[in-house]
Amino acid sequence: MDLKKEITQIAKKAKAACGILANLETSEKNRILEEMARNLESKKEQILKANKKDIAAGRRAKLSSAFIDRLTLNDQRIDDMAACLLDVAKLADPVGKEIKSWQVPSGLKIHKLRVPIGVIAIIYESRPNVTSDCIGLTFKSGNSVILRGGSEALNSNIAIFEAINEVIKKNNLPEGAINIIATKERRAVDVLLKLNDYIDLVIPRGGEGLIKKVVSLSRIPVIKHYKGICHIYVDDYVDLNMAEKICFNAKVQRPGVCNAMESMLVHRDVAARFLPGMLKKFKAAQVEIRGCPLTQRIGKKGIIKAKDSDYRTEYADLILAVKVVDSLDQAIAHINEYGSHHSDSIVTDDQNNAKEFLKRIDSACVYVNASTRFTDGNQFGMGAEIGISTDKLHARGPMGLEELTSYKYVVWGNGQIRE
Amino acid sequence: MDLKKEITQIAKKAKAACGILANLETSEKNRILEEMARNLESKKEQILKANKKDIAAGRRAKLSSAFIDRLTLNDQRIDDMAACLLDVAKLADPVGKEIKSWQVPSGLKIHKLRVPIGVIAIIYESRPNVTSDCIGLTFKSGNSVILRGGSEALNSNIAIFEAINEVIKKNNLPEGAINIIATKERRAVDVLLKLNDYIDLVIPRGGEGLIKKVVSLSRIPVIKHYKGICHIYVDDYVDLNMAEKICFNAKVQRPGVCNAMESMLVHRDVAARFLPGMLKKFKAAQVEIRGCPLTQRIGKKGIIKAKDSDYRTEYADLILAVKVVDSLDQAIAHINEYGSHHSDSIVTDDQNNAKEFLKRIDSACVYVNASTRFTDGNQFGMGAEIGISTDKLHARGPMGLEELTSYKYVVWGNGQIRE
Repeated sequence: MDLKKEITQIAKKAKAACGILANLETSEKNRILEEMARNLESKKEQILKANKKDIAAGRRAKLSSAFIDRLTLNDQRIDDMAACLLDVAKLADPVGKEIKSWQVPSGLKIHKLRVPIGVIAIIYESRPNVTSDCIGLTFKSGNSVILRGGSEALNSNIAIFEAINEVIKKNNLPEGAINIIATKERRAVDVLLKLNDYIDLVIPRGGEGLIKKVVSLSRIPVIKHYKGICHIYVDDYVDLNMAEKICFNAKVQRPGVCNAMESMLVHRDVAARFLPGMLKKFKAAQVEIRGCPLTQRIGKKGIIKAKDSDYRTEYADLILAVKVVDSLDQAIAHINEYGSHHSDSIVTDDQNNAKEFLKRIDSACVYVNASTRFTDGNQFGMGAEIGISTDKLHARGPMGLEELTSYKYVVWGNGQIRE
Repeated sequence: MDLKKEITQIAKKAKAACGILANLETSEKNRILEEMARNLESKKEQILKANKKDIAAGRRAKLSSAFIDRLTLNDQRIDDMAACLLDVAKLADPVGKEIKSWQVPSGLKIHKLRVPIGVIAIIYESRPNVTSDCIGLTFKSGNSVILRGGSEALNSNIAIFEAINEVIKKNNLPEGAINIIATKERRAVDVLLKLNDYIDLVIPRGGEGLIKKVVSLSRIPVIKHYKGICHIYVDDYVDLNMAEKICFNAKVQRPGVCNAMESMLVHRDVAARFLPGMLKKFKAAQVEIRGCPLTQRIGKKGIIKAKDSDYRTEYADLILAVKVVDSLDQAIAHINEYGSHHSDSIVTDDQNNAKEFLKRIDSACVYVNASTRFTDGNQFGMGAEIGISTDKLHARGPMGLEELTSYKYVVWGNGQIRE
């Protein structure tokens, strides 16, 4: 069968499964999620065997060691995947939840209720755990899912998928409930992204290149996050000790993630007091500093001159751009212009400046006196996340189960007609 | 200046205006909306003069009388436009409203607050009143707007826009707050839909052709409604008198709108009792019936045989497709397959059937014992609407001010760092 026909067939089956998934009882979904977790554990051997094939091929293709690390499964990582499914089983089910209800003068009673979105396609890079994590979240929120993982992880993904799909079959759930595009052909993504008659939402997870490609090709709505260029602004009236702790944490604790700080802005009036100690601490932690001229002067030697492009870069590494600013206004303007509208924080003892910052920074998450590292579904109390959105439509910031739902209006009348 | 450069310039200015609009006080927005209404009234003469030019050109181009009617302004219609701006001034302001707030174990206090979406582009056909209605709604919800109306109404739209923009200028609001693409060049839309760096949302308003074009060209998220193929299903255990009133209302009261009934489904067990009287009433109201074989047999003469495509058509006219079904299940399957996921209603005295219908019909609005004609921002108590969405992402069903907002997370800490 040709690829287009095959993928269209998968999407049609996914659509057909929606009605059943949307109306499963919460207790049944939880029971099935627990069964999925058990089956992952009991198929560990097969999964690890498939993963070994992917790793061997990856080594032959000379993939980087970081890439191979993300690709690699082991006992512990499969246990973690199973644990994630159990965690999702414990989360509250958003489906059917009433968002609000009211009565209108005509006498109609209107209920706004959460319903699943329908069919969700997830396009991701070569991290096999994403396969089971995404199945867990989409299944619990009543959606069908179509998975398209990185081709380097195809054997691992198929093995994980098969272990979970056995449970779907055993429970007589529709065949299209969970789906995988099991081919290495790159054209598969192009085909998938045109199927807007059957697929309701695409979530790309991965690097900026992948996401830009998806956005440019897709006729289906996309929720995405390009990059995280997060800022911390150290205000003039401030507890310098707290500022130092927060900035250090935001840069160093886990530099490779999207909510780590990439640029630090410091008010001119505290720069001379704050920067020497702060820069020393960063240097001790191997952080490379790229600074504005004033930062260079204060930091003395070892500070690289920051180019304009440095303030627009997500390093995801132990590199930090630093800039001294004249005012809160300048800090806000810089963040809105250079940032990625992800997470930004002000450290200040001035309540008015804090409020001004919160109001005017156009980002998904804006903080006062805290590290940007808290932008995360778990830290926000959502239990799990399918991603973080820097979009403004539908979902913004950390996305959990609720963000995988839409709503419908259920209206009760007793014979109302429109006059 | 070339078109692309010119439109990009407009979009950039619209983006630049966002920060100011997002933080205007409610009272100031309301005062300005009232001023806009007054200025529309005082510029009536100029607006009507511009409209006469459009009408004359439309007549020369032999546009249909229905088209000319939609294009035509008069004293009353301008009064209505001004009244709409005053109505919007009276509506609650969604911006800044807290959706929820909670504290997490780290001690952070998280507030989820409504914020404007940013820059909204509206692409519409030749109804000049849409120009002022959309400015009112986007302005009140704190968004910049870029208007692109039908070229046949360009003179009217410019005149309306200028009257309102005088108020924007007089109040020292940023130039990019409201914008109009003042050219008849069709290429302008293609250019606009690629400006995803500056425009956050596109709302197309008009026929299916326009909307499909926008979806296929746009790199910007689109919220849309293709068509309204609304159903009423008359169940077997039912008050036939109520069913007749509801079905008649849904078809006849205003057949040209998207929430009018296009297909009526009747349970086999009541068909012989219900259809004869119902069909007679429809015939008296000049409704053309296209029925299934059983409907033809019961209705005797004058009933056209319905083709499969009749059940997929939005007539927006006094034409109705009728089908006798064997069961609730068949009715639900038909509606989910043939409908447009807009508004569907069941008339029944059986609470369990009602609940089953509400649960399984995959539409924005599902009704029990009421006419589908209530799907409307005003009837839902939203005060005004910018459209009705048949999408599932971001907004579904009638869209008012709240649906023109996004949210952001505002997080207060006291030194929290991630362990």
